[in-house]
Amino acid sequence: MSSFFDNIRRVTPYVPGEQPEGKVIKLNTNENPYPPAPAVGEILAATDADLLKKYPEADIGSLVRELSKTYGVKPSQVFVGVGSDDVIGMIFLSCFAGEKPIAFPDITYSFYDVWAELFRVPYRTIPLKEDYTIDVNDYDGDWGGVIIANPNAPTSIELPISDVEELVKRHPECIVVIDEAYVDFGGTSAMPLIEKYPNLLVTQTFSKSRSLAGMRIGFAVGNEAVIKAINDVKYSYNSYTLNRTAITAGVASLSDPEYFKKTCERVIRTREAARAELSKLGFSCPESKTNFLFATHESIPAEYIQKELKKRDIYVRYWNKPRINNRLRITIGTDEEMAALYAALKEIIASCR
Amino acid sequence: MSSFFDNIRRVTPYVPGEQPEGKVIKLNTNENPYPPAPAVGEILAATDADLLKKYPEADIGSLVRELSKTYGVKPSQVFVGVGSDDVIGMIFLSCFAGEKPIAFPDITYSFYDVWAELFRVPYRTIPLKEDYTIDVNDYDGDWGGVIIANPNAPTSIELPISDVEELVKRHPECIVVIDEAYVDFGGTSAMPLIEKYPNLLVTQTFSKSRSLAGMRIGFAVGNEAVIKAINDVKYSYNSYTLNRTAITAGVASLSDPEYFKKTCERVIRTREAARAELSKLGFSCPESKTNFLFATHESIPAEYIQKELKKRDIYVRYWNKPRINNRLRITIGTDEEMAALYAALKEIIASCR
Repeated sequence: MSSFFDNIRRVTPYVPGEQPEGKVIKLNTNENPYPPAPAVGEILAATDADLLKKYPEADIGSLVRELSKTYGVKPSQVFVGVGSDDVIGMIFLSCFAGEKPIAFPDITYSFYDVWAELFRVPYRTIPLKEDYTIDVNDYDGDWGGVIIANPNAPTSIELPISDVEELVKRHPECIVVIDEAYVDFGGTSAMPLIEKYPNLLVTQTFSKSRSLAGMRIGFAVGNEAVIKAINDVKYSYNSYTLNRTAITAGVASLSDPEYFKKTCERVIRTREAARAELSKLGFSCPESKTNFLFATHESIPAEYIQKELKKRDIYVRYWNKPRINNRLRITIGTDEEMAALYAALKEIIASCR
Repeated sequence: MSSFFDNIRRVTPYVPGEQPEGKVIKLNTNENPYPPAPAVGEILAATDADLLKKYPEADIGSLVRELSKTYGVKPSQVFVGVGSDDVIGMIFLSCFAGEKPIAFPDITYSFYDVWAELFRVPYRTIPLKEDYTIDVNDYDGDWGGVIIANPNAPTSIELPISDVEELVKRHPECIVVIDEAYVDFGGTSAMPLIEKYPNLLVTQTFSKSRSLAGMRIGFAVGNEAVIKAINDVKYSYNSYTLNRTAITAGVASLSDPEYFKKTCERVIRTREAARAELSKLGFSCPESKTNFLFATHESIPAEYIQKELKKRDIYVRYWNKPRINNRLRITIGTDEEMAALYAALKEIIASCR
């Protein structure tokens, strides 16, 4: 191979969950089973295509302002990006730029270590306890940053807000990021703490609770000076990130808090029913504050169940990784989709007897 | 300030062109004055909002396939990103990962040096000649990468394709990126050379010639192994970048080559008329192969003209930077917008007598 390859970075890319086409039951990528707020469809149908010839707002101002109203913060405390992946990537680039390692759990969202490697940020992983919970004492030390998904993925477990505050308080030396992708499904947000702790950043996404995975919208809330630093990096990287339809769809989604509350509650109800139902089938799952369950069966290996479900056109997520290789991450679908899942599981379990 | 700030990166952010609201004539950010292909509006109006709850295609497959048909390459030779800013940012991250400096002109797209600094890529700038042209002999050396905007911005000047080939041929040691954001306005693309030179990457955008600045779509074409390396970095950074509406709008735009050709030709006609008209008013501009002119007046300073135009609600671009601080970058608008520009310029010139 020619020598220009010497300059090319080799990475082990993150493998996203399968995105099968056609008539399947997709419980593998934590999407919301319900459509976005009706206002989203209305605003998109009314798009004036002529406007698309112009760049979108560089500061994403209209969406930033609506987010600031929705969450009771100042516009200057809000950063918006192309999904929370982009938001957290920008935080890594802008806030984890020192020489000290950053810390995060060994079992968590699998992008943290790839971002750290990509941006040459030194890092250390801190093992979760045996029961997959986080002990904030394990984070004692002098860090370049800390990032915690809360509720954590793929475990679905929430770190109590008092522990989150303790962690943020103990680490004034660095930015502590709380990645709340799933918080709207019954968790407690750390957002009210941002006034008290300038080193706290809270990130959220429109992909799960707002049913807008297809639009790619995420945001961070924090101290003004920190948000400005992230924006400075963003402007130096790509001035125009969210396109015009994403901005208007995001604003439309925020305009309907009733619908938002209702769909989150529906997912929570189905989740609680699913946990009980799966328990009857011999599964156990930690208490979930997310739109998925982290299930293990008393006798049948997780990998086998995943393959058997796939044969029946039902997709759930499985990782062949230490400590979680007998677990399935099952997204909460509609009640109908879950009923199909239970029926398939019963069949699989019966065939193993 | 608390010590967590020690880890925060300080950057001098790129300042994008002003985006004034309301009834103004905007000739400052090189947008297309004509709307996108009618099919774009039709496909957006028909968006099924329910689909937005699902992630978009991670491989952006439907748009990649259409691009491959349009440009006669294999899908595996195409990388798509959120505008060519995202595409080139990913190329910097993935292909300029060695220790040797990369090279680009001193006067060119102002993101190259900010990306290099952000990703800690060493770089050297090579001065343009007095007349703003590029001499490929000036690039002799052993580089970690070369990037040339062709036609160049803000100069509007094209490097002849034979010189582009010479440059690519002389630098088998590194990836040579030809950033062809403006090539559809009369330039010659280097794309046919990719089969011959595995170290060549050509980037283009939907923001200018396809009137889709508001949708954020850019792409790179090159050697399969290099495209794979860029995709690996992309997947490790953000699996889902283009949202569903951007993907469908991009496909719709490519479906109408007649409209595309027609709008490019209209811009070119207006540009040639503008160059003649401006010459009558005492301006000179190099021959442009872009949708803008790089104008200087025989007696009135560029900065003064820019301010006077702004008072009249006409926006053009000016940089107070060495070697170009007596130049205006004037985007080609509609014939009506250009007529308003000429009238305003006449007024300004008359007031200086």
